[in-house]
Amino acid sequence: MGDPAGIGPEVIMKSVASPDIRRLAIFTIVGDAGVIENASKECFKEKLSVHQWADKDIKLDETSVNVIDPGSALKNTSPGNPTLEGAKKTLECIRVAAEIMQTSSKDSARAMVTAPVSKELIARVHEGFIGHTEYLQEASLAKLVTMVLVGDNLCVIPVTRHIPIKEVPAKLTGELIVETLKQVVDNRELISGENSARIAVTALNPHCGEKGRIGTEEIDIIAPAVEKAKKFYEYIEGPISADTVFYGALKKKVDIVVAMYHDQCLAPFKMVDFDSGVNVTLGLGWVRTSPDHGTAFDISGKGLANAGSMKHAIKLAFRAIS
Amino acid sequence: MGDPAGIGPEVIMKSVASPDIRRLAIFTIVGDAGVIENASKECFKEKLSVHQWADKDIKLDETSVNVIDPGSALKNTSPGNPTLEGAKKTLECIRVAAEIMQTSSKDSARAMVTAPVSKELIARVHEGFIGHTEYLQEASLAKLVTMVLVGDNLCVIPVTRHIPIKEVPAKLTGELIVETLKQVVDNRELISGENSARIAVTALNPHCGEKGRIGTEEIDIIAPAVEKAKKFYEYIEGPISADTVFYGALKKKVDIVVAMYHDQCLAPFKMVDFDSGVNVTLGLGWVRTSPDHGTAFDISGKGLANAGSMKHAIKLAFRAIS
Repeated sequence: MGDPAGIGPEVIMKSVASPDIRRLAIFTIVGDAGVIENASKECFKEKLSVHQWADKDIKLDETSVNVIDPGSALKNTSPGNPTLEGAKKTLECIRVAAEIMQTSSKDSARAMVTAPVSKELIARVHEGFIGHTEYLQEASLAKLVTMVLVGDNLCVIPVTRHIPIKEVPAKLTGELIVETLKQVVDNRELISGENSARIAVTALNPHCGEKGRIGTEEIDIIAPAVEKAKKFYEYIEGPISADTVFYGALKKKVDIVVAMYHDQCLAPFKMVDFDSGVNVTLGLGWVRTSPDHGTAFDISGKGLANAGSMKHAIKLAFRAIS
Repeated sequence: MGDPAGIGPEVIMKSVASPDIRRLAIFTIVGDAGVIENASKECFKEKLSVHQWADKDIKLDETSVNVIDPGSALKNTSPGNPTLEGAKKTLECIRVAAEIMQTSSKDSARAMVTAPVSKELIARVHEGFIGHTEYLQEASLAKLVTMVLVGDNLCVIPVTRHIPIKEVPAKLTGELIVETLKQVVDNRELISGENSARIAVTALNPHCGEKGRIGTEEIDIIAPAVEKAKKFYEYIEGPISADTVFYGALKKKVDIVVAMYHDQCLAPFKMVDFDSGVNVTLGLGWVRTSPDHGTAFDISGKGLANAGSMKHAIKLAFRAIS
């Protein structure tokens, strides 16, 4: 459900109320039943099928939208008024959703769509919480997960994510780049829609290091990693200077850009896909997507939230499992 | 003239041949006379007034476009065929142009527009050459110079420039940020066209460091520098996460973005101003502008080069001195 005080519940219910989404799957929302029911009032006319996670034998209602409530009802949290109580339940929902994914049969279609949370609030009730991606990596025992941003114009992947810039050069190993490229190649059709997607890899330093004059990581680490990756997938090129490669992607010269760090790809991505971005996590063993916007506490509960990005996220999750 | 084998000579002559540029000033091109004359053939119908730099007493012809040739004529360089001979003369032209700026009266209107060079080739004849900005800083004995990219949509400034990412965090001091902001504030009208331009300062780390959880430079260095800068200019805010601030600038919430490093601002800048960018150097004691494209050796000599960015650069230089 995301943070119960944010626009998460609203965009979830607006999405499942939409016929083109509703027909895709049997939906189960892991969230506070009261919050979800409240968010349904204005937009969702059917009756929800509510279950308690504590109940041993949950039977999903295939004709309805299901809610699984992982714990006691929220008392002091309302739209626009975030609380630690709400943050705690948000995290509990993510934990339960991950457990459902982990314990479902590997043959079943497993996809999880998350709604926006306040990382700051969750970090206050769960020390060290950085974000969904890292939390789910731990919950799924995945060795490596990859964060992908899919927009209408660009598809970008940062090899390193939520770490200080200072730590980026040491974290960038050839192995990490190659393993990330493997996950991207394995999921290229899901994320770009193209089976022969052209993948570009950025440089770390300005002007691609200018042959070693502005840094040596291009020569020592990135170029050899790209060469290795070419052995399992031919349409990979790089390293390419970050100030030209994203523009090239915008002009459709490449389909996917794998970047070395967070801002290097997020800043150009948001210039052209601010409203359309979907976040996809690869490597969990199941699919996780998410709209790329925040909790928007300021407009929560007013019926103003745009469900476009959530709908994109649901459609992408559906594409992955169908 | 820029690299004689590149499109520099062509875009210079196309620009001065254009009536809206021609009427702005008395132009002097520092370059190889043969190369400039060759580039004039197709587009410039007047007779050039050619001078040798070695001549003691050069008298510019105010009715014509002047060429000052700093040395012996190029023999083996032609459009599309870059040589070390050409790189050497390119650098000599920059040196002479800088000398003209430095030795002209401080009361005279001093502006220099540079054309694209091959940094790689110049570095082979002049060890350690990184780019115009750094070379001119040395030539002008400037303590601090600032590189500004001015486009149709964005106006961005990297506090650090052509250095490896690894060196960025250590290079970023409060003093450097404050002094850069001073130069930006002093030149805000030139670069943004606004006397009360709103200036945003980026964070260094992802998500603005998330209150210290992803790096501490925001708290320790950038926020205090912004506070100091606010004492001499009120419309400064920051640090702001790089993945939202450029989009905000595109939506006109701010006029100028001061970023912490090269790719952080160049990647989003080129997404929306790939063709319109002008490079401006602040702090030299005189004005220097430049189109933000490269030598384009592949299309040189074919009459195909677009002079739009060079014209922008000339107009901006003129705005600075008028």
